Amino acid sequence: MIFKSDFDIETIQQMGTDNMLARAAWVSTGKDVGDPRTEKVVGLLSFLMKNRHGTPFEHGSLTVRINMPIFLWREWHRHRVGFSYNEESARYKPLDPVFYQPGEERAKHSMKPEGFKPSKPGFRGLLPNDRQDCDNRDLRAAYGFAYNLYLERLRVGIDNGLARVCLPVGIYSACYVTANPRSIMHFLSLRVDDPDAHFETHPQWEMDQIARKYEDIFAFYWPITHQLWVENGRVAP
Amino acid sequence: MIFKSDFDIETIQQMGTDNMLARAAWVSTGKDVGDPRTEKVVGLLSFLMKNRHGTPFEHGSLTVRINMPIFLWREWHRHRVGFSYNEESARYKPLDPVFYQPGEERAKHSMKPEGFKPSKPGFRGLLPNDRQDCDNRDLRAAYGFAYNLYLERLRVGIDNGLARVCLPVGIYSACYVTANPRSIMHFLSLRVDDPDAHFETHPQWEMDQIARKYEDIFAFYWPITHQLWVENGRVAP
Amino acid sequence: MIFKSDFDIETIQQMGTDNMLARAAWVSTGKDVGDPRTEKVVGLLSFLMKNRHGTPFEHGSLTVRINMPIFLWREWHRHRVGFSYNEESARYKPLDPVFYQPGEERAKHSMKPEGFKPSKPGFRGLLPNDRQDCDNRDLRAAYGFAYNLYLERLRVGIDNGLARVCLPVGIYSACYVTANPRSIMHFLSLRVDDPDAHFETHPQWEMDQIARKYEDIFAFYWPITHQLWVENGRVAP
Amino acid sequence: MIFKSDFDIETIQQMGTDNMLARAAWVSTGKDVGDPRTEKVVGLLSFLMKNRHGTPFEHGSLTVRINMPIFLWREWHRHRVGFSYNEESARYKPLDPVFYQPGEERAKHSMKPEGFKPSKPGFRGLLPNDRQDCDNRDLRAAYGFAYNLYLERLRVGIDNGLARVCLPVGIYSACYVTANPRSIMHFLSLRVDDPDAHFETHPQWEMDQIARKYEDIFAFYWPITHQLWVENGRVAP
Repeated sequence: MIFKSDFDIETIQQMGTDNMLARAAWVSTGKDVGDPRTEKVVGLLSFLMKNRHGTPFEHGSLTVRINMPIFLWREWHRHRVGFSYNEESARYKPLDPVFYQPGEERAKHSMKPEGFKPSKPGFRGLLPNDRQDCDNRDLRAAYGFAYNLYLERLRVGIDNGLARVCLPVGIYSACYVTANPRSIMHFLSLRVDDPDAHFETHPQWEMDQIARKYEDIFAFYWPITHQLWVENGRVAP
Repeated sequence: MIFKSDFDIETIQQMGTDNMLARAAWVSTGKDVGDPRTEKVVGLLSFLMKNRHGTPFEHGSLTVRINMPIFLWREWHRHRVGFSYNEESARYKPLDPVFYQPGEERAKHSMKPEGFKPSKPGFRGLLPNDRQDCDNRDLRAAYGFAYNLYLERLRVGIDNGLARVCLPVGIYSACYVTANPRSIMHFLSLRVDDPDAHFETHPQWEMDQIARKYEDIFAFYWPITHQLWVENGRVAP
Repeated sequence: MIFKSDFDIETIQQMGTDNMLARAAWVSTGKDVGDPRTEKVVGLLSFLMKNRHGTPFEHGSLTVRINMPIFLWREWHRHRVGFSYNEESARYKPLDPVFYQPGEERAKHSMKPEGFKPSKPGFRGLLPNDRQDCDNRDLRAAYGFAYNLYLERLRVGIDNGLARVCLPVGIYSACYVTANPRSIMHFLSLRVDDPDAHFETHPQWEMDQIARKYEDIFAFYWPITHQLWVENGRVAP
Repeated sequence: MIFKSDFDIETIQQMGTDNMLARAAWVSTGKDVGDPRTEKVVGLLSFLMKNRHGTPFEHGSLTVRINMPIFLWREWHRHRVGFSYNEESARYKPLDPVFYQPGEERAKHSMKPEGFKPSKPGFRGLLPNDRQDCDNRDLRAAYGFAYNLYLERLRVGIDNGLARVCLPVGIYSACYVTANPRSIMHFLSLRVDDPDAHFETHPQWEMDQIARKYEDIFAFYWPITHQLWVENGRVAP
């Protein structure tokens, strides 16, 4: 059994630079030829971002491989437009015993304050460390109990799809995710809690963590687009 | 704790009859006015189905409320085009203790035969009933163990989103699903194993069960479309 | 030959009230049962709108039949997500001789001011009425010339798809359009120029006209949603 | 004035090989690592194609720039899923005087036979060459008439969006098109008339021409996927 407190993301492939997004936009005016100067690209993308002309930002693509728990995939997979997925299948192969347990950093954000209404998500309180050690010990025991039953169910010959029903949503699963810059910005505007964002959002702490890593990759490949998007309050065009 | 072996689906609202789909198609030829005779509708929809003109079948809508385990939602939610979802949120409210255990009918389909390769999904073997009783007893114990820990985690004040990580994928969750006839046919062509289908498909037994109930509702509201789709080998136009 | 200066839109069918959108959202908290009080619905939809929870607004549907010129369809059809279309086909039937000519109201908005840069769309200047009469006379002549050639091409037996190439983009075409409230709001946020909108937009005058009629229908069926959307700066959730 | 009888398509950028599509599929079984042998890739993609597992074919992307008449764009833009577009805008810039006239090859397919019902599209009859010369002369005259009026309307200061209404659908327009292999296969299954296709289709001759060029590019970048798709009757997975 492996217990992890973080999530892995790696870049698989990428297509289309900031310049390419600008070229796609310039087809509107017939200027999509030749290699543009950077200040021209910045000027155009800034205009598009501000005026919410979104389609030019679809002419790029990024594929990443992410390994994270099922409870996070449940949220991520709800993004339908401009996203393609291929995920590890518990019907084709037994899942590996890799589970999520909150780390020290998370402990600072996991408790609800006195009088907190349970219907309000997104709270981030304080959890004493000794309290958390205890919680994680119980959690690991539950993970172990469930996974052992899973192995036993596979052993007696129950089919994979049915054997898995006892597995907890804290188990890890890998998935290829392909998306275009426009969809990525839309995703990030909802899944990263940034104080400077124009629209407030309250993702779960874990989702926020993996989304920030995703944003780093996005910013690496499309630095101009990313900066302009941030400057415009992180509103997807 | 409640243990269920079936899945609930109820119709919430519906829009657009077979006649309406035909009218939408007739706008192409300017004949979309007045109330058409049934044989005309059958003739047109048959032509559209056979020649894979899919768009007219998008001018209807069906909303259902389904209550089924998370491991099934994980598959259903992968249908992105023409599907809208709103699901019970474990971040907003504690999930109820309702869990899936296979019933008698499923037992007949749950064991892998000798020499069966685990990488091949969709197998449906035989499981002796006493074997299954034993399996379900273990399963219920695991569900109980996980759910009690979940309650404890909520009690000590861990936030909802983090408390849930120990919950198994066999727990039930409710969701509103809105889709159009074209998307529904596409879904059914992959999620119901019908011997007369033009293209073979191997859904998990549980998915096949709920998809058949969904098909019944679809056939009730769009009887002509459904029959023509069946006659054309269940290939979505 | 018919010359029109306006565009027709009629409601064909509709599904889902404001209450239904609220019910779809309440499945998240398990309160999606019974008939809610109006102030509860307003409160919930207001929260969803403000916090950009968009999915509940997808559980409704509206089909309209619109008759407008091809140059407007060219823009409208670029809306891909949550929109379904079936349009009159010039391959199946000869198009009728109905053409767009700007009316008096449009004249006030059709001239570019001195020094106006042609690359900037959305201008709305003044055109003297006598000037416009003259322009429309020329326009009608061009429409007549093109349509007569079209008839001749059909008469000598050129196939419909090829015969049409001489037809101008000012010719009318009818189309069924089905969309959900979320998609409709997104469309309206780009296609209606409203001074109180949070994000500026510059649709062509004609698009603005037909989009306002579409907005009236939307507001009729979903009055609460519409009002909240307006109050939130016409930003689609 | 330029009169063309063909359509231009050029590759702008591409991402993801056949190997990459296979790797995306292998994440299901955890074998998405290392460089696979070609026969393995062929075996897997063949299985996916036959069993209509479509999602792995979404992890690639192709951007092309196409220059073709508006009446063809009207059809192409109806493909919504997995397609992104940026097109030349007659609101931002005056359109160039480039128009479509059928060439010799087309002449062989442009006449309807005796007794042909006009409601049936897709006919391909015979047109004597002298007949066509005459038709094209008339067509060029109509194009010239319309374009001169367009220039005049721009000259007197009518705004671009309104000035264009007299332009014929035979005028050329350039557009960037980005799509993934799955969407491309779906497009080609409807827009290329191939005698060996499992499902018959009747695109207009001109659409068939440009779609075949698009297919050549697709086959160049994904030779294994293309061949398997052809072998499976050109049915998109």
